[in-house]
Amino acid sequence: MKYALYYWSGIPGRGEFVRLALEETGVPYADIALTKDGDKKMMADMKSESTHPAFAPPYLKAGKLVIGQTANILLFLGERHSLAPKNDSGRFWVHQLQLTIADLVAEIHDSHHPVAGSLYYEEQKAEAARRAKNLRDERLPKYLGYFDRVLTAQGSGWLAGRSVSYADLSLFHVVEGLRYALPRTMRQLEKRYREFARLHDKVARRPRIAAYLGSGRRQPFNEEGIFRHYPELDI
Amino acid sequence: MKYALYYWSGIPGRGEFVRLALEETGVPYADIALTKDGDKKMMADMKSESTHPAFAPPYLKAGKLVIGQTANILLFLGERHSLAPKNDSGRFWVHQLQLTIADLVAEIHDSHHPVAGSLYYEEQKAEAARRAKNLRDERLPKYLGYFDRVLTAQGSGWLAGRSVSYADLSLFHVVEGLRYALPRTMRQLEKRYREFARLHDKVARRPRIAAYLGSGRRQPFNEEGIFRHYPELDI
Repeated sequence: MKYALYYWSGIPGRGEFVRLALEETGVPYADIALTKDGDKKMMADMKSESTHPAFAPPYLKAGKLVIGQTANILLFLGERHSLAPKNDSGRFWVHQLQLTIADLVAEIHDSHHPVAGSLYYEEQKAEAARRAKNLRDERLPKYLGYFDRVLTAQGSGWLAGRSVSYADLSLFHVVEGLRYALPRTMRQLEKRYREFARLHDKVARRPRIAAYLGSGRRQPFNEEGIFRHYPELDI
Repeated sequence: MKYALYYWSGIPGRGEFVRLALEETGVPYADIALTKDGDKKMMADMKSESTHPAFAPPYLKAGKLVIGQTANILLFLGERHSLAPKNDSGRFWVHQLQLTIADLVAEIHDSHHPVAGSLYYEEQKAEAARRAKNLRDERLPKYLGYFDRVLTAQGSGWLAGRSVSYADLSLFHVVEGLRYALPRTMRQLEKRYREFARLHDKVARRPRIAAYLGSGRRQPFNEEGIFRHYPELDI
């Protein structure tokens, strides 16, 4: 087993961005969240690591390397498995896009948890209503408009040149997540920004991704993760 | 002129993390924010870029390269100017730390803007009071405790091995910013986490950084940026 992914069980969460990259490479990996007592194993492992500890999951073990932070893991996998261009222009571009996706993901999370991740949604519903309105009216149009312009300018259906990159896989998952969490908002936005359906379908058709999506390894969205469907936060 | 940094004028903001790295390298660079009509120039430049547009400032021009996202710019400068180890173990570690610093910086920003960046603080004071309490009581102790453990484990006073990295320069700026924004909270936290003063002073003593801090190029903190001093959000 070449790689081991450590992440919370029961949600796609940020671990899913790493899973999609691992699945696309076809390299075998252990998904600790899918093993018995996965969370306990991870928490014990996090306590034992003293040289390069992760602040939070996900993190990836690759031989002696321990790599934390989602976008950093993807940077590593992108270099090793050609999920990003090799030249400076392309590899920094893909990473820039990934970090922008990470910012968007954090904003989506905070739309239902604007006060504290450690409090329940029910304890911050009033604040969430205000923040979710800002997400729907300002932030999502800004982010999706940006990625739509990038996809249009590239012309290939991919974010960087003519090949799939880890940023494309991540943006696919964001589209899936937003369609789950805010279906009415997304239906309107996808009428304005037409490149997302194309990117989404191109990723979903890739043989290894299609096999993964149809497998038991792909975990469904739910109201514990980043993308939560609270109808009152949608249009 | 080898590099040009594009960022908003009038605040240190996220541009400051890039400035500190550029200053440490000693390479000449144009700081567009410090030139006449800097914001106008930047906005015109952002509109004209179609291949690798930035979602938001800062971004750096380096010859034909245009690189956005703070941590990505630092990854680039770290490789070019030995502000990070060359080996995989070290370079992914420093980037992991930088992305954790970026998460912390976003949380600090959102403590005074928990609803929307586009609204005034005065329009979200109630929400900010709740979120700032969570920042003081839970998040800052968690983040600072983490970095303190890392510094203690490394033993060198630096976050990665025996040399300064771009993450050290960024953490220095976070310490400066937190001392400005939340002085009473920081006095308490620095009693518990004693490595920060050492790191801060080691960075401040580096000849090029010391020269920069004493120059007119270093912009002061104010209530327009990330680190804002609102006494009611402090202890």
